[in-house]
Amino acid sequence: MKKIIPTLPKGTRDFGPNEMKKREYLFKIFKDTFSMYGFNALETPSMENVNVLNGKYGEEGDKLIFRILDSGDFIKNIENIDSKDSNNLKKEISKKGLRYDLTVPFARYVSMNRDKITLPFKRYQIQNVWRADRPQKGRFREFYQCDVDYIGTKSILCEAEIIDLVYSIFKKIDIKDFSIKLNNRKVLLGIAEVLSLEKKFDKICIIIDKLDKIGKEKFINELKNIGLSTNQIDKLNSVLFFSGSNKEKVSFLKDVLTESNIGLEGINEIENLIQLSKDFIFDISLARGLSYYTSSIFEVVLDDKNIGSLCGGGRYDDLTEIFGYKDISGIGISFGIERIYQIMNERNLFSDNLYNKEAVLVCSMSEEFMDNSLKISSLLRKNNIITDLYPDNPKLKKQLQYANNNSIPYVIIIGEDEVKSKLYTLKNMETGSQEKLSIEEIISKVSS
Amino acid sequence: MKKIIPTLPKGTRDFGPNEMKKREYLFKIFKDTFSMYGFNALETPSMENVNVLNGKYGEEGDKLIFRILDSGDFIKNIENIDSKDSNNLKKEISKKGLRYDLTVPFARYVSMNRDKITLPFKRYQIQNVWRADRPQKGRFREFYQCDVDYIGTKSILCEAEIIDLVYSIFKKIDIKDFSIKLNNRKVLLGIAEVLSLEKKFDKICIIIDKLDKIGKEKFINELKNIGLSTNQIDKLNSVLFFSGSNKEKVSFLKDVLTESNIGLEGINEIENLIQLSKDFIFDISLARGLSYYTSSIFEVVLDDKNIGSLCGGGRYDDLTEIFGYKDISGIGISFGIERIYQIMNERNLFSDNLYNKEAVLVCSMSEEFMDNSLKISSLLRKNNIITDLYPDNPKLKKQLQYANNNSIPYVIIIGEDEVKSKLYTLKNMETGSQEKLSIEEIISKVSS
Repeated sequence: MKKIIPTLPKGTRDFGPNEMKKREYLFKIFKDTFSMYGFNALETPSMENVNVLNGKYGEEGDKLIFRILDSGDFIKNIENIDSKDSNNLKKEISKKGLRYDLTVPFARYVSMNRDKITLPFKRYQIQNVWRADRPQKGRFREFYQCDVDYIGTKSILCEAEIIDLVYSIFKKIDIKDFSIKLNNRKVLLGIAEVLSLEKKFDKICIIIDKLDKIGKEKFINELKNIGLSTNQIDKLNSVLFFSGSNKEKVSFLKDVLTESNIGLEGINEIENLIQLSKDFIFDISLARGLSYYTSSIFEVVLDDKNIGSLCGGGRYDDLTEIFGYKDISGIGISFGIERIYQIMNERNLFSDNLYNKEAVLVCSMSEEFMDNSLKISSLLRKNNIITDLYPDNPKLKKQLQYANNNSIPYVIIIGEDEVKSKLYTLKNMETGSQEKLSIEEIISKVSS
Repeated sequence: MKKIIPTLPKGTRDFGPNEMKKREYLFKIFKDTFSMYGFNALETPSMENVNVLNGKYGEEGDKLIFRILDSGDFIKNIENIDSKDSNNLKKEISKKGLRYDLTVPFARYVSMNRDKITLPFKRYQIQNVWRADRPQKGRFREFYQCDVDYIGTKSILCEAEIIDLVYSIFKKIDIKDFSIKLNNRKVLLGIAEVLSLEKKFDKICIIIDKLDKIGKEKFINELKNIGLSTNQIDKLNSVLFFSGSNKEKVSFLKDVLTESNIGLEGINEIENLIQLSKDFIFDISLARGLSYYTSSIFEVVLDDKNIGSLCGGGRYDDLTEIFGYKDISGIGISFGIERIYQIMNERNLFSDNLYNKEAVLVCSMSEEFMDNSLKISSLLRKNNIITDLYPDNPKLKKQLQYANNNSIPYVIIIGEDEVKSKLYTLKNMETGSQEKLSIEEIISKVSS
């Protein structure tokens, strides 16, 4: 047999038992909380037709989509194959791609099922996405995204509910040093309008979004590069970085934006939200990179500025229009579940409770007690005690080592004396103490 | 904007909220039961390097692997591209493939992590697999598999535990009309030996495995085609289809197999298992198609013969050998979770309990009560009541329709009277009755 050295594809990971315990614990908190807020689960296929994915993530994004090679004789009908470059050939030999995010599949789902779903429609989705990015620390080619969206409503109650949802989740995972930054694309558009910069709005947003990464100097240079005058840059800065309370910012911007209807509309939305929620910081310099946002935008950031945002989202007006379903406003937030996992890990926020306190390993000293072991295991499980059964009969030391390695807190030892007396040795792996007990006593001891 | 008609790739599915409720309920039963038996979760990446996958599923299987096109300029270094056929070109432009099953990734994981894991190692894995098969009713290109394996032990206790696990799960999902068929490859090999058919053993197993599908006549023809004499076929039939109790079959085979050491070894294993478990049928004509099984093999079948097997598995001696990790025996079972889902659906076995009995929709008759709605929702959720909040204020009829469509059993209506009196209308959507209650009364009523 030809031996193969087993390897993992670049940028992918196995999740072994210990990691899975933590990941499932975290994922469950998300799912339960979403469900508590009336969001239902949705799953879409890993593959989408390429025409659904293409053009949605910008030129750079498109290049990062993993493409599936067509099945069968995929070059049969291709003429002049030697005259084609990779980019042209790709289109002819791969018509499906792996999911790049959860937003586009969601928009595709809503558009395809518009006759079946009831609006407003609320869904959460926790699934893998794939990106052919250069792997680096904390960046993978396969990772989970975790999205929550409302679609079919323009109500500002959604913003308030999402803010509440974020607090509810972060409380459960015990991360306290965070804040929610919120802005409104209409406010930004208004600012651009009063500075006569409407035409450069998208570019300005992208530059503002990079501010934290590139620093103020580069920020100003990039604004110059797209043609802003020093005067415009100064004015922009004085507005974006105006400091004060949420209410002070609102009244300041009402003055700045008197001439911009869209700007005042945005301010009005923020004012309404301030009535409903105190739990956000109105940050005029928050822009978000994605072009489909049209109103509220927000990010969850840690006080530690070295860590990027943990969640981000916003309101969009025409996400489904490309699929022929018009005038459907929605709002969504994406929780950076992988990054949150990483931070919780670094901070030791996964409790010992992950490892079941009511679990037992049944050890037996000889093959002849197999039947006893099975019966005892079955009885323990009927009493809701997680029970592992060591299948072989090596020296006790080895069996105890297995219990330790698998974080099993109790061991039952079955030997000749035990079978005769029907009193079994129960060993507490933490304290090392052991005593002989009947099965009923063991059950009550372990369960308590 | 160019409109796109949204479609799904052939053989793939979306799972909307109602299906997800049922699927998650079913998956949870599996996970909780596996965990109760001491199995831990494992997840492996969706992609594997092609050398890990290739050659493991037979020639036909290899063709069904979805391949990922290499990123970047994938044809840059390919010479004489026009001289290549699809099969040759594929190898040069795609070095990764999507997971075809969970067994090979598991073997790859165990081999890669041999220094980290403690043997015996027990894992369960519930993940998608992909096959470029022709889609048809009940057969998809993306579907979940659900596998449980022991690795690093030869103990017959594993067989007994797996049988017990199957009963435990089928009891929870309320499927009663099933049985577990069990055989042993060593017994089959022994039968081949005494009939001087050792060299045709693999082929004979594949033909026996197809018996249910092709019927007895074709079965005999196929045996003839691979060169069995009428005499050999008659003898084979008289052994394979010997009827009797498990114990009768054992004593019958002891006579048949006196001359075959391997056959007697197999019979001995079955005899030992009979001591431990009564919950299986020793079926001498069970063969299983996969060549890596070396000892016990089993299937879970419904009494309704029109439905194929629901689960299958067996013991293997050298699954990890190809990855350089030798002499590691293991045993596994694969639960046909998609087929089980389908049967439960057809039989209406998903209970109404999936739809939360303690869920409330908060409806409000005007925007001015937004703040009240939010506070009430928050209070209900703090009391563990699943609470959805209708974000807009259309006519009540529309809001009630939403509650109905989303199977929400209670509605709280907030209007002017309610806000003034602090007594809110609680409507039971099932009975249609409604009454005015304080929030505390509502909480206790809905929770009870």
